[in-house]
Amino acid sequence: MEFVPSEEALLNEELKRIRADIDAVFDALLPVPMDSRKRLVEAMRYAAIGGGKRVRPLLLAATADLFGVDRDMAVRAGCAVEAIHAYSLIHDDLPCMDDDDLRHGKPTVHKAFDEATAVLAGDSLHALAFEILSAPEMSSDPFTRAELVATLAMASGMNGMAGGQVMDMAAEEKDYDLHAITRMQQLKTGALLAASVEMGAILGRLPAEGRGGLRGYARDIGLAFQIADDLLDYEGDEAKAGKALRKDDEQGKQTFVTLMGADQAREQARALVDQAVGHLAQHGEDARLLAALARFIVERDR
Amino acid sequence: MEFVPSEEALLNEELKRIRADIDAVFDALLPVPMDSRKRLVEAMRYAAIGGGKRVRPLLLAATADLFGVDRDMAVRAGCAVEAIHAYSLIHDDLPCMDDDDLRHGKPTVHKAFDEATAVLAGDSLHALAFEILSAPEMSSDPFTRAELVATLAMASGMNGMAGGQVMDMAAEEKDYDLHAITRMQQLKTGALLAASVEMGAILGRLPAEGRGGLRGYARDIGLAFQIADDLLDYEGDEAKAGKALRKDDEQGKQTFVTLMGADQAREQARALVDQAVGHLAQHGEDARLLAALARFIVERDR
Repeated sequence: MEFVPSEEALLNEELKRIRADIDAVFDALLPVPMDSRKRLVEAMRYAAIGGGKRVRPLLLAATADLFGVDRDMAVRAGCAVEAIHAYSLIHDDLPCMDDDDLRHGKPTVHKAFDEATAVLAGDSLHALAFEILSAPEMSSDPFTRAELVATLAMASGMNGMAGGQVMDMAAEEKDYDLHAITRMQQLKTGALLAASVEMGAILGRLPAEGRGGLRGYARDIGLAFQIADDLLDYEGDEAKAGKALRKDDEQGKQTFVTLMGADQAREQARALVDQAVGHLAQHGEDARLLAALARFIVERDR
Repeated sequence: MEFVPSEEALLNEELKRIRADIDAVFDALLPVPMDSRKRLVEAMRYAAIGGGKRVRPLLLAATADLFGVDRDMAVRAGCAVEAIHAYSLIHDDLPCMDDDDLRHGKPTVHKAFDEATAVLAGDSLHALAFEILSAPEMSSDPFTRAELVATLAMASGMNGMAGGQVMDMAAEEKDYDLHAITRMQQLKTGALLAASVEMGAILGRLPAEGRGGLRGYARDIGLAFQIADDLLDYEGDEAKAGKALRKDDEQGKQTFVTLMGADQAREQARALVDQAVGHLAQHGEDARLLAALARFIVERDR
């Protein structure tokens, strides 16, 4: 009889594995130069290596696994997504943005280095993402490379993450309702999570027409992820989260929690996860990791 | 007898044409949304439309012309380069970087809008560049799209423009010699100018082995461009330049002018232009516009 690990054991194993894999690729991609760019690359490494849960690369890799994609390729593409995520955190933490001092339990990049270096380390990680995806080592198929770039660029710019960040900034002045909050979060957080799943499908050469189920899964977990984030901000433990919490409330921002109440928000997040897992039915047991990830996203404490 | 316009008339005509073309594509790519991203897209339009000499897109288009590339394609790719250039100016002008109030004769983006919007407008233009290049409308050939992305990403990141910017920031503390200044400028300004020429060759499907002459041309004009910039900073007219000058001197930075003297720097720039034009010999009369551009680069007054 084959030993089948519990869903939690499987997930912990896979989270540990992807963290090590992503760190190793970043380490190889970011050798510290001997010239005066040393400080820049050190800041990039500080932001990119060793921090974060690596949910996005694991989403990408777990999706790619469904189609038997080589893990090294999935990790490379995951590094590109994580480079975008890391740059966005550096820029979001800047004094002129959210002005945060702590990220992943350590000083933010502009605190550990300086503001100018933080801006440029973010910009350089941004460019690195597209350098990774467009390089021949990413995939021997140029169509795959171009599609990966297009998907990630669209998810990060004005019609994705950056656009959502602007909507979030405006939320302090405008009284967003549930519809507006949902739309904002779909761009701010949802777009990059969805891109991670989509990029896994692209590596798996799944034609766009066949991606409906996976896109439904991605949409649902994206929203669940943000509701969980709002709950964490509302009732989480700062030490575990490794960053300042209760900021939404201080700024008088509407969130899923202020609009629905904590209990209903939690219920909604769990319902979304069930719905997300439902979208995976056609993949059967193969989608166990994606299902486990969906549950992790709402139950996490950081 | 056919009328052959003077080199100056040809150049002015072409600069006017590319300015109109680039503005039209940006205008189409950046419709102002009805939601709270309005301010972001307005800031992107403010930075991208109507400003700048458009030297980079014209370099790209003039190179592409050598191979009979459709002008619309060259303009699209030129917009991607210009989006990178525009984002870099927005971020360079920020208070934590060069802290400039004036650019192209109008308030810088963080002055006209605010710092957070400036950071995000820069980030969004950065992503837009790769969205443009990876879109199927850019080229029907995915290999061309991926190669365009790879070339521009490499030229903008830590081994290109952003790396050069960091080296420039460090120049205040370190006493750079001519060798170090040259290396810094090759990254800071040269990489994007060289990428523009390279992308014209990529659109023209010129294999990498055949790009030696054009690369030599790009390398020489890149350096000449920066020497001309240093000369402008040293002896130029602020009203014409549309930005603050004499900043290098105030900051005690070494430049080509401080290291060589203005006269020798001017001589050096002109020698580089002659050398650059020499690299174009194999293209004969077809390269007239590239030759005119090289001369414009050192003789310009803004």
